[in-house]
Amino acid sequence: MTQLMRTLTVDLGDRSYPIYIGADLITDAQLYRPHIHGRQVMIVSNETVAPLYLDKVRGALDGFDVASVILPDGEQYKNLGVLDQIYSALLEHRFDRRCTLVALGGGVIGDMAGFAAASYQRGVNFIQVPTTLLSQVDSSVGGKTGVNHPLGKNMIGAFHQPQCVIADTATLATLPDRELSAGLAEVIKYGLIDDAEFFAWLEQNMAALVARDHAALSYAIERSCRDKAAVVAADERESGQRALLNLGHTFGHAIETGMGYGSWLHGEAVGAGMCMAARMSRHLGWLSVDQLARVERLIEAAKLPTQPPEQVSAERFGELMAVDKKVMDGQLRLVLMHDIGGSVISADFDPQALQKTLRGD
Amino acid sequence: MTQLMRTLTVDLGDRSYPIYIGADLITDAQLYRPHIHGRQVMIVSNETVAPLYLDKVRGALDGFDVASVILPDGEQYKNLGVLDQIYSALLEHRFDRRCTLVALGGGVIGDMAGFAAASYQRGVNFIQVPTTLLSQVDSSVGGKTGVNHPLGKNMIGAFHQPQCVIADTATLATLPDRELSAGLAEVIKYGLIDDAEFFAWLEQNMAALVARDHAALSYAIERSCRDKAAVVAADERESGQRALLNLGHTFGHAIETGMGYGSWLHGEAVGAGMCMAARMSRHLGWLSVDQLARVERLIEAAKLPTQPPEQVSAERFGELMAVDKKVMDGQLRLVLMHDIGGSVISADFDPQALQKTLRGD
Repeated sequence: MTQLMRTLTVDLGDRSYPIYIGADLITDAQLYRPHIHGRQVMIVSNETVAPLYLDKVRGALDGFDVASVILPDGEQYKNLGVLDQIYSALLEHRFDRRCTLVALGGGVIGDMAGFAAASYQRGVNFIQVPTTLLSQVDSSVGGKTGVNHPLGKNMIGAFHQPQCVIADTATLATLPDRELSAGLAEVIKYGLIDDAEFFAWLEQNMAALVARDHAALSYAIERSCRDKAAVVAADERESGQRALLNLGHTFGHAIETGMGYGSWLHGEAVGAGMCMAARMSRHLGWLSVDQLARVERLIEAAKLPTQPPEQVSAERFGELMAVDKKVMDGQLRLVLMHDIGGSVISADFDPQALQKTLRGD
Repeated sequence: MTQLMRTLTVDLGDRSYPIYIGADLITDAQLYRPHIHGRQVMIVSNETVAPLYLDKVRGALDGFDVASVILPDGEQYKNLGVLDQIYSALLEHRFDRRCTLVALGGGVIGDMAGFAAASYQRGVNFIQVPTTLLSQVDSSVGGKTGVNHPLGKNMIGAFHQPQCVIADTATLATLPDRELSAGLAEVIKYGLIDDAEFFAWLEQNMAALVARDHAALSYAIERSCRDKAAVVAADERESGQRALLNLGHTFGHAIETGMGYGSWLHGEAVGAGMCMAARMSRHLGWLSVDQLARVERLIEAAKLPTQPPEQVSAERFGELMAVDKKVMDGQLRLVLMHDIGGSVISADFDPQALQKTLRGD
């Protein structure tokens, strides 16, 4: 039934798991079965995705004791109150600690269902079924789960690895253009971090990706997952190099928090955030004018913003960044670039370069 | 400064940690220092304990960047909403992921501060400073953390081991009689599970314990921690024998939920629950009349209830127990007794024996 499926493995010892990538995978019962240990399955989805795919996934889970909980759609609902709806659904159905959660949706659903799985009865299994480009290339891989707090993004959560990831490329057909672009921000990120060859490929193929060319998208998803899996395998709990994956995110989180969750998409904020990191790297003399132009041009070609919103002042940016998780013992650590494909984690930079970047100089 | 301190180790590989037991330990700065890695320390306490001990602990943490958050006192406040107060305090003080939480109080504070530590920025360190007998002998040891849900006790949480446990026996001087008895329920539990010699010692020394004889209490705390640490070391995540520690708890949780959190103390419910487990074991022919009498007599001598509250009917008990975590794939598993010091986890029992127990026959 399934054609041309690719399987990658995230290598984490006894927490290793496969990522399946291909078209029409969500209806393939055989993909789910080896990864479900009890009989009880709770599908967690949202109001946008459920009408499109819930029945298909239910069909593939025929024979299990399946229930579902449908959350409102949007980053502004990624909070403790909405998380509690998942716990309530699990308890109302008397689900025990052998149950499995299936996260059917984008990054918000994956993060919330994953954290619910991490914390329900001190930890149950879950399966990621990402239906957006962003979640297929980023948030469904690596085990970061959690919710936002009014005072900071992703401040409450856990590391909890899924049993498997089922990335169905056919679901991208229903994705709004704006969300496709948001996903491309994370794809570009992998090129910028340590894969200059992929960055060059993206420069050649961005038009095809934006036009949803299936072959181009499949390749980009697989390469992104492979790049991310390598980083995660080397540093699961982000004690070191995994923080490279935060490229553009410290700036981006400040944009999201400053504008209120749900105003800018996460990927849009990361797109502008990567441009800010590139401009700061230019101010430091680490990137050339040409390299900066390549970064800004590719992000623009992905139909993403290259500038932060005017509403967030330089002062407010500074405040918001101070609370970011990358602050260590009072020291702000940022992911900056010495080259395209040569990103570094650094706390050792001229603060004037940051101020110039925030002021938009 | 500290005299007659005993140190036990909970043996969990790279998550091993010491338990310090003795009088006047909470003011000993040298106990805390090796276990705090960053500079930021958040003391989590409650309205009852903070006026007694907060300044003493603050004094011992001189030189660190110390803040505190004071929660309302009681099991009814062990929920997601109150947990959020801890996250807010951490974020308002801009605490980073190298911070350390100090849980200063009883089991509720330890469970909540521990879960906040497990989930703040996906996991930070914490230190247990238990100030009740129950938390010194039970909840501060073993890494179970979490909060209650309106539909079930301890349904949201994580396994998260502390850096160390500082059990100051001098703090028991201010403990109300009712809470001392509640702690003795868990002490008796260790004897019933697998330590018949300790059970016999408790029969000889219960009057001294209730009268707060210091030597007797110190011995009981150390032996209880040792018994528990051995079980936890063998099965950290409760895939098997750790469930023995739930002796009396499936019945007890039903009492607590049925009466509303905060009406019965946890230890009181466990005391009655152990008597119910013993009576059910008698109905099954597993305990003799004499053995049952010894159990009920010791629990009574600890000034604990031996019967469940009349307000919780047999039917309601059945409903409440069905949602308990020990239900596996629809099968109710209970901790029952073949002997004093010979407890077993069993799903293989005559359901009539359970019904008789719930009806009080």
